[in-house]
Amino acid sequence: MGRTTSAAGSLDVIPVDECYQRLAGHELGRIGVIAGHQPLVIPVDYGLDGRTIVVRTHPGTTLSAAEHADVAFEVDEFDRARRSGWSVLVRGLAEEVGPGHGADLVARTRAVGVRPWAPGEHGNWLRIIPQAVSGRRVSPGQLPWGVDDRAHL
Amino acid sequence: MGRTTSAAGSLDVIPVDECYQRLAGHELGRIGVIAGHQPLVIPVDYGLDGRTIVVRTHPGTTLSAAEHADVAFEVDEFDRARRSGWSVLVRGLAEEVGPGHGADLVARTRAVGVRPWAPGEHGNWLRIIPQAVSGRRVSPGQLPWGVDDRAHL
Repeated sequence: MGRTTSAAGSLDVIPVDECYQRLAGHELGRIGVIAGHQPLVIPVDYGLDGRTIVVRTHPGTTLSAAEHADVAFEVDEFDRARRSGWSVLVRGLAEEVGPGHGADLVARTRAVGVRPWAPGEHGNWLRIIPQAVSGRRVSPGQLPWGVDDRAHL
Repeated sequence: MGRTTSAAGSLDVIPVDECYQRLAGHELGRIGVIAGHQPLVIPVDYGLDGRTIVVRTHPGTTLSAAEHADVAFEVDEFDRARRSGWSVLVRGLAEEVGPGHGADLVARTRAVGVRPWAPGEHGNWLRIIPQAVSGRRVSPGQLPWGVDDRAHL
């Protein structure tokens, strides 16, 4: 656990292994994509295949902008009353699972168990391959949440 | 409250006025910015000046990529056990408050009362002027959260 100290206070950087543990402990994240030069942030259910994030998508929606694109994926938890919390930010490449993928990868992706978007219809699978992962934690008495993003630089 | 029905289930669209009410009732959101062709999602404290979202930023951090740029701003609340929740997505233009702004706007911005990022240091103010606002609500028994973003299209 690294700690950055400045006149502003101190900030805990979450080590990469712990970032993945926190990702594994949650099911709801937010994907950031660029659609027509405009950033969008969409909440999504997700699961993990190793360190790859797996998301179900609905064909033809905004998330189709994520195909073969750089995306962000964020998970956080915050206790407003205690003014404490943490966030993990993944920067990665998104790839839709398709006919070009081997049966092994398709099977592994399905085994993640993210619920389908609708009964009887499977939708598409999106895999986000992390290229950079960072996390930060704010404890009571430290910086207010969210306005210092040094841990994500 | 509009409702979209399809073979997938039903989805409640949150009217724009209610989107702003929900924004007004929260303090923690997530800003989506593009930094070097890469989308990023950063949690931030925020307040409202009318319908303009006000965020404190730390000079020199990732959020400086938001200056005069298209950004996304997202707020959500989710009850995992009940599989219900909602999200509001704002697409807007971000503008840093600077010397070019009138005293009135600066005063209004400061009056929003978003806490400074550190005692004794004021940081920068970022205003996000909404250009499009959308919201959706998922109720128990409806779609799983997050994988159908029609309400945000």
